[in-house]
Amino acid sequence: MAEIENSKLAIIGAGAVGTSIAYAAIIRGSAREVVISDVDAARVEAEMLDLAHGTLFTGSTSITGGDDLDIVIGAHVIVITAGAKQHAGQSRLDLASTNVDILRDLMPKLVARAPDAVYLLVTNPCDVMVVAAHEISGLPSGRVFGSGTVLDTSRLRWLLAERVGVSASSVHAMIVGEHGDSEFPLWSQASVGPVPILEWRTEDVPPLDLDELDRIANDVRNAAYRVIAGKGATNYAIGLSVARIAEAVLRDEGAVLPLSSMLTDYRGISGVALSIPSVVDARGISHVIDAPFSPSELELLTISAEAVRKTLRPLGF
Amino acid sequence: MAEIENSKLAIIGAGAVGTSIAYAAIIRGSAREVVISDVDAARVEAEMLDLAHGTLFTGSTSITGGDDLDIVIGAHVIVITAGAKQHAGQSRLDLASTNVDILRDLMPKLVARAPDAVYLLVTNPCDVMVVAAHEISGLPSGRVFGSGTVLDTSRLRWLLAERVGVSASSVHAMIVGEHGDSEFPLWSQASVGPVPILEWRTEDVPPLDLDELDRIANDVRNAAYRVIAGKGATNYAIGLSVARIAEAVLRDEGAVLPLSSMLTDYRGISGVALSIPSVVDARGISHVIDAPFSPSELELLTISAEAVRKTLRPLGF
Amino acid sequence: MAEIENSKLAIIGAGAVGTSIAYAAIIRGSAREVVISDVDAARVEAEMLDLAHGTLFTGSTSITGGDDLDIVIGAHVIVITAGAKQHAGQSRLDLASTNVDILRDLMPKLVARAPDAVYLLVTNPCDVMVVAAHEISGLPSGRVFGSGTVLDTSRLRWLLAERVGVSASSVHAMIVGEHGDSEFPLWSQASVGPVPILEWRTEDVPPLDLDELDRIANDVRNAAYRVIAGKGATNYAIGLSVARIAEAVLRDEGAVLPLSSMLTDYRGISGVALSIPSVVDARGISHVIDAPFSPSELELLTISAEAVRKTLRPLGF
Amino acid sequence: MAEIENSKLAIIGAGAVGTSIAYAAIIRGSAREVVISDVDAARVEAEMLDLAHGTLFTGSTSITGGDDLDIVIGAHVIVITAGAKQHAGQSRLDLASTNVDILRDLMPKLVARAPDAVYLLVTNPCDVMVVAAHEISGLPSGRVFGSGTVLDTSRLRWLLAERVGVSASSVHAMIVGEHGDSEFPLWSQASVGPVPILEWRTEDVPPLDLDELDRIANDVRNAAYRVIAGKGATNYAIGLSVARIAEAVLRDEGAVLPLSSMLTDYRGISGVALSIPSVVDARGISHVIDAPFSPSELELLTISAEAVRKTLRPLGF
Repeated sequence: MAEIENSKLAIIGAGAVGTSIAYAAIIRGSAREVVISDVDAARVEAEMLDLAHGTLFTGSTSITGGDDLDIVIGAHVIVITAGAKQHAGQSRLDLASTNVDILRDLMPKLVARAPDAVYLLVTNPCDVMVVAAHEISGLPSGRVFGSGTVLDTSRLRWLLAERVGVSASSVHAMIVGEHGDSEFPLWSQASVGPVPILEWRTEDVPPLDLDELDRIANDVRNAAYRVIAGKGATNYAIGLSVARIAEAVLRDEGAVLPLSSMLTDYRGISGVALSIPSVVDARGISHVIDAPFSPSELELLTISAEAVRKTLRPLGF
Repeated sequence: MAEIENSKLAIIGAGAVGTSIAYAAIIRGSAREVVISDVDAARVEAEMLDLAHGTLFTGSTSITGGDDLDIVIGAHVIVITAGAKQHAGQSRLDLASTNVDILRDLMPKLVARAPDAVYLLVTNPCDVMVVAAHEISGLPSGRVFGSGTVLDTSRLRWLLAERVGVSASSVHAMIVGEHGDSEFPLWSQASVGPVPILEWRTEDVPPLDLDELDRIANDVRNAAYRVIAGKGATNYAIGLSVARIAEAVLRDEGAVLPLSSMLTDYRGISGVALSIPSVVDARGISHVIDAPFSPSELELLTISAEAVRKTLRPLGF
Repeated sequence: MAEIENSKLAIIGAGAVGTSIAYAAIIRGSAREVVISDVDAARVEAEMLDLAHGTLFTGSTSITGGDDLDIVIGAHVIVITAGAKQHAGQSRLDLASTNVDILRDLMPKLVARAPDAVYLLVTNPCDVMVVAAHEISGLPSGRVFGSGTVLDTSRLRWLLAERVGVSASSVHAMIVGEHGDSEFPLWSQASVGPVPILEWRTEDVPPLDLDELDRIANDVRNAAYRVIAGKGATNYAIGLSVARIAEAVLRDEGAVLPLSSMLTDYRGISGVALSIPSVVDARGISHVIDAPFSPSELELLTISAEAVRKTLRPLGF
Repeated sequence: MAEIENSKLAIIGAGAVGTSIAYAAIIRGSAREVVISDVDAARVEAEMLDLAHGTLFTGSTSITGGDDLDIVIGAHVIVITAGAKQHAGQSRLDLASTNVDILRDLMPKLVARAPDAVYLLVTNPCDVMVVAAHEISGLPSGRVFGSGTVLDTSRLRWLLAERVGVSASSVHAMIVGEHGDSEFPLWSQASVGPVPILEWRTEDVPPLDLDELDRIANDVRNAAYRVIAGKGATNYAIGLSVARIAEAVLRDEGAVLPLSSMLTDYRGISGVALSIPSVVDARGISHVIDAPFSPSELELLTISAEAVRKTLRPLGF
């Protein structure tokens, strides 16, 4: 009999982030099967039911969940959201130690059950988690990476789109580096349609200049803090970002996204994970792209690498 | 110049339910414009940003929000989720008094700003809210109704689908009556594909009998309690249910859904709101359907009406 | 490395029907990979390019095509549209002989390349083709079946929906039997929402009666002839119908659809293929449903069986 | 009562192009209402039925059609596909005279019925038709424009994506100028993700050079001829392209697309229509973008303008 191996997405952690990813993935039909795992059996059961109760109104995605890690068996993509969450006022890098300890326990159990899966780290500080998961698992860097600055890039494109009056899908710009305070846009390559961003002119919007670009980049950096200040967490935008990344893998797309993976001699940087434009397909990250950096952007990348390194060192990586 | 009046959905309340509705509506493209309003300005701003930051990955729906009710001007559908939420152990009908007071303040302000909108009540106890909103606003019953048992119906069809091994979209069954403990399935009309539910036979699943149908109906009734016990609230399934109902209005569909509206001599019942299969199109509920009830189902409907009435009376309706 | 076996849909025949199926499947994202095969290399190359040139605007479905049957290797569903097409005035059953000869050549070649695929016959006369493909291939009846009356059912539900003023998705009715002149609706189980079709009442539409149901059934039967008279062929509706059936298999849905498969003692009927409500999942047809037939419907089914048998006999089946 | 003015798309011409646009629009849900008009009443009736018969499997888009132009009343976008079609070997510009005559008859009738609509010309030679429709109707240039090189751009991005091994959505490149033999890619602004196209490097694909870019541009130019040689016409890719453009208007997107509109002192060019990156929203083309052209690209644009002018002159424009 024909056995159709349908796409399976596993999510570790049934908190607000994990369940928002599941909700987005079910509504979008990102995978045929979504499973959600959490150490809190009562919580994950309740979240699973709440998700399942809405599936009449979506496509053919099934949802199951529980506290037994065996449900990840057969998963093509495993998203890790488990960990303590970032509190208002706390920098992303402060969370590291606790969350690395969780990974030390979790990764070997996951890899034993799903040795061929692509692992997508969402827990913050994302770049540190990627390095830790990579070291702990021994998986190749293309198969264990972080959502990184995909979310920050989405924030940037939304802000720019509002500013210049076109749809976000026609704004081409990317945030790279650390998923944190030292991240920065690759302004040298940013454009609106085919127009370099600083050259965009229409009669009804004033042109952008470098000072305003700086302010916009700052707004993006502070966006997470603003959301956390107002609602205590961020979950919806990261939910969509992760569903999108998972689709790029599950559908073997070859999409170019700024994901955080372990770098080896990338522009001279090694031993840290940073978000760099990467090609994503069924293999995970198939290529980290040799993107053009202006001299000042290259300097920012080096600073970003150092920022991640500073957290990694005391953790022993 | 051609002015395209695109569909606008307003959501009152930026809690877990309101924002889940917005999230589902944005991902599905239920409306061109979603606005979300809450008295807590900081909260609604944060939720709006978190929703907006993900819109790069969705269609062309825009999201705005704030604490100024003027943002509902021009809305075609206004969803009301504002209110105290149901706590574990609390019956749905206990919430009534507080939430009716909120409506007394809110409805006149909304109707002043959007006199032609369709009003969809989600706040619990849903049926009581519908009666209150109807009385307070003076709107016709087809333009102020509740999500009612659409969610319970979705739960029922998911359970039945799991049980008989077909997709939920091929299971035809509806919960009617009170959105609460006295609700009941219209078993006499339930079917799997074209097969009456009690006659469904395949070699690999045992047939259903009346006792099991009773147990399944009970499971549906208890589903909300189970979810609340595990996660403190329900939000995802109601989010999808409400997005679906809003689409039926905004796309002028003529879908048949079990919605709660004020009844006038429906099977002899008047002056209460109960969920009855209804045709939903751009006018709101265009017809409450004269559905077939078996004698025992009719008795259950009368009991359900009495249950709602019992809460209405002390509230003065 | 994780190998994601994405869904693959193969279409045999690059005529108007085959390419409309491909177009619908690409736009809907029915499969990750669509391949189209035709003996006319220039034609299939041109059709493939025309389809591929639009994929920027769709999801991640890839399209390839050619005259080498090896492109079906790995397909999960193979749709057969090859064959002479029905001309205006010609009954569906007259096409049989030519098209069976094509199957005698084609089926062994396909089964050699894709022994585990599900085979979906679209070529007319559909029921005869199913018997022939089943006999030629020796595949189990659940893995070689025809689109049958799925299209006719869609026509019926559209007509009924227009008539009673609700959306087609809220009209439950099915055409069964021969995909041809002897087909008939299972009126005894037809409903609008939960209301038996003859009991449907609203103030603005007159109720249906048996005479009108007969006329509507006739309109459905004549729909193909009307379309062929006006445009020389039918392709768009069958394109969507087949994409939908393929999805039910590729997504392992368990949908209930009226598909044509070889019957063995179904209500006493054996040795012919007729459309009967069937459960469709990754296995193909997993169950032919024991649907309720009124005595007169049972008589019509027997007549339908005889109509198909009459064409089968001279063909040697 | 709340009146929801849902989006309405009218298509003039029920040939292969017009009906492919309708099919794509129905499946994608591009508009709530699609109407299709043709002088051949029997043909348009048959096509309309064939489209309507599949709508059970799509969203809430309705389809109607006929030979009475009054069905365009209320349309927000009117797509014109009417005209003689391009034959194998025939240059696009040879079709002009016949098709301009059709516009002389058609445009006044349409504008009388839908004075506020956005008019989208698909009939070839597209740029000539735009000028003619503009002159005949007296409408502003932002409300009467052509699909232009949107289709050619889609072909280009597909070819480049296949070549470099990423998804077409991550390839940024645009064809501009005449929709015909003198069209050309704006290579100076083309990129893969954030990487200028000539700098794209991965270990598994050889880098592109200028000679290869020239060959790819040529392949795009010849694509229509290849498709026409093999199947006699092109319809599927143009169907998707036009559905996409219509969505940008109907959803008020602000998308940047290379559309053909009447130019007035654009880089010194006036009095002809050429495809230039343009912002498309509910107003139609709200801005023709001041895109950067290299000196050689500017020369090509001038040549393109001259090519269109050469056809316009004998037609009296």
